[in-house]
Amino acid sequence: MNINIAILGFGTVGSGVAEVLDMNRASITEKTGRNIVLKHILDLREFPDSPYKDLVTHDAEEVFNDSELDIVVETIGGARIAYEFTKRALSLGKSVVTSNKELVSTHGVELLKIAAENNCSYLYEAAVGGGIPIIRPLYKCLAANEIVKIAGIVNGTTNYILSKMKDDGLTYEEALKGAQANGFAEANPTADVDGIDAQRKLSILSTIALNGRYVAPDRIHTEGISNLTLDDIEFEKEIGATLKLIAYFSKAEDGRPCIYVAPHYVSGSNLLSNVGGVFNAIMVEGNALGESMYYGKGAGMLPTASAVCSDILEAATTGGRPSESRLWREEGADITPYEDIVCDIVVRSAEGTDKLKEAFSGYDVSVLSGNAVLVKSIRHKDIDLTGLPGAKYFHYLG
Amino acid sequence: MNINIAILGFGTVGSGVAEVLDMNRASITEKTGRNIVLKHILDLREFPDSPYKDLVTHDAEEVFNDSELDIVVETIGGARIAYEFTKRALSLGKSVVTSNKELVSTHGVELLKIAAENNCSYLYEAAVGGGIPIIRPLYKCLAANEIVKIAGIVNGTTNYILSKMKDDGLTYEEALKGAQANGFAEANPTADVDGIDAQRKLSILSTIALNGRYVAPDRIHTEGISNLTLDDIEFEKEIGATLKLIAYFSKAEDGRPCIYVAPHYVSGSNLLSNVGGVFNAIMVEGNALGESMYYGKGAGMLPTASAVCSDILEAATTGGRPSESRLWREEGADITPYEDIVCDIVVRSAEGTDKLKEAFSGYDVSVLSGNAVLVKSIRHKDIDLTGLPGAKYFHYLG
Repeated sequence: MNINIAILGFGTVGSGVAEVLDMNRASITEKTGRNIVLKHILDLREFPDSPYKDLVTHDAEEVFNDSELDIVVETIGGARIAYEFTKRALSLGKSVVTSNKELVSTHGVELLKIAAENNCSYLYEAAVGGGIPIIRPLYKCLAANEIVKIAGIVNGTTNYILSKMKDDGLTYEEALKGAQANGFAEANPTADVDGIDAQRKLSILSTIALNGRYVAPDRIHTEGISNLTLDDIEFEKEIGATLKLIAYFSKAEDGRPCIYVAPHYVSGSNLLSNVGGVFNAIMVEGNALGESMYYGKGAGMLPTASAVCSDILEAATTGGRPSESRLWREEGADITPYEDIVCDIVVRSAEGTDKLKEAFSGYDVSVLSGNAVLVKSIRHKDIDLTGLPGAKYFHYLG
Repeated sequence: MNINIAILGFGTVGSGVAEVLDMNRASITEKTGRNIVLKHILDLREFPDSPYKDLVTHDAEEVFNDSELDIVVETIGGARIAYEFTKRALSLGKSVVTSNKELVSTHGVELLKIAAENNCSYLYEAAVGGGIPIIRPLYKCLAANEIVKIAGIVNGTTNYILSKMKDDGLTYEEALKGAQANGFAEANPTADVDGIDAQRKLSILSTIALNGRYVAPDRIHTEGISNLTLDDIEFEKEIGATLKLIAYFSKAEDGRPCIYVAPHYVSGSNLLSNVGGVFNAIMVEGNALGESMYYGKGAGMLPTASAVCSDILEAATTGGRPSESRLWREEGADITPYEDIVCDIVVRSAEGTDKLKEAFSGYDVSVLSGNAVLVKSIRHKDIDLTGLPGAKYFHYLG
């Protein structure tokens, strides 16, 4: 059976989708009984050297007026034209698959609703963790669990920078330049290094973990890595931990979720501490399953295309019928204010551990090194570093 | 919508299924729109102290004659009565979900065919990796990939024993006794320590990786861990690697798969080397995705029940309609004979590295320590230890 698709936006991911579908055509057809036919590529650019150049059009009408079109692949990015095209495709009853974390995290509620109303699917496995299977495992494989915790390295750019600072002793600025030279960071790296990309992905993961109760990205307290110093990195060895930018979700005792993005010292005994370079890994704890982890390439042409193609095949084999469980709710989730979140922190001060223990008396404090302690279960608003000049604290993940 | 289920075999996993469904009932219903009703428990035993005691019956006819039954959970184990019950349920058009690796690996071809013929599903997410999502990710999330490699720690008992030998300096016999005392190994540990359990799981993973071309367990060369000595374990430190029982699948240059179970020295830079205790982890490489890894609890009541329940919910929400891609083929896969498989090995000999280099001249050999070398890309039948008295070799995973 032929399934006709159009790719909107023929950049890295879009062209990767075309390549993966051709590279594995025989195997895909054998497995699914479907032959995926790329009919249109919508892009403003020409691709004179591409084997797909004859499929390129600049005219969106040509795509949307094709009554034989089954599935639309949105790999444009951003939340403007991609938003308009996605709404239009779903309104026509065409399933849309995407890697666009910005669009899913900001307009997911509306777009999933339009899909359901038009009996088609809006699928976004590639929006979190690149090629790593995570959206479908959360929805399907952990369906019988309550998700109690998520801790993820979900941004490859920042993980690459942190790995380079650690392994090669580079400053943040040097490591960022190297990442840009190697194509692992964009010319304007803000979305990555300030944690915005991780924030969008955590918005999606949290919403799913809360059975569709929407957590908008701008409600998530977010810290990036641009203020980290080589001292912070070198301190890793002293305490046997590694600095990682962690997207964090957990259920507090009252059941309300605690959600934030911030650098964490991750204990050497935690598998996440060994996830280096541009790799991503996401730890998910379910109340039946316990801890599980998903690891792989969080970005890149073919890995991300692998995830997009898995959604194409899902839409193709289910006839586009949406799963009701995938709907998000308009009302929004009731989340814990950042100031009230209870966490574990590492505090470092040249004043020494006696002063530190004094400052955090009343808490469960353990000494990590000559000038650092681990303080357990402290509320953010109770973290008080006055009286400890030059002291610095980070979150800790055991 | 109510979905009526019966649990056949109320042991650890079966009772875990009942517990998970009750524990997370509200959340499951919210997510899926289905209320899973446990109607029958078939077991030879009585469970006078169980909250489910009133559902227990010893009469299979009571279960199979219930026309309102939707899904059968087979958690009996083995391939005798479980086989008969599964055939009967599928023939009646009732979907069956199971954690029974022995039955799936030996009769999967026939049972999946009966399911397809009767428009229902035979699902076995829990048969490999316990609670870890692996079957569905392989089928769905990596659907657009050719699977080129799998390396898995798929047996928790052996991993626990190896971890104890390493961490506590116990002999194999001591570690096994400890595992039995802690409930991590059975009184008759043969299926685990001889690698039979891993063989069955690899049979399932390989068959899926080959698009349903069946790899029967008895075609898989299998070595267990019962011959490992403390010397083998202590040698780990010398070469910065950890001994793990690995279920291995890869595509040879001619496209034919290489499939075997054997202890491997796993390099410290490989995440699998850090998977300790009863945890499982499976590395899967796709030709688009690259390397990915799935980690979690490979056994235990609630983790395994978590996977069984995910299959119950899949069968419930799809109305039991089978996915054609899940069929296995009768013809069987064309696999590389063990003797012809090319692999990397670590060879240890008191004769020293000069003698070792001489014995493996013509190969890519690197010195690992004073009395051990790594030999790359050698065919099994060409491994010749004559002339190296007392020498020993193991597979190596970089």
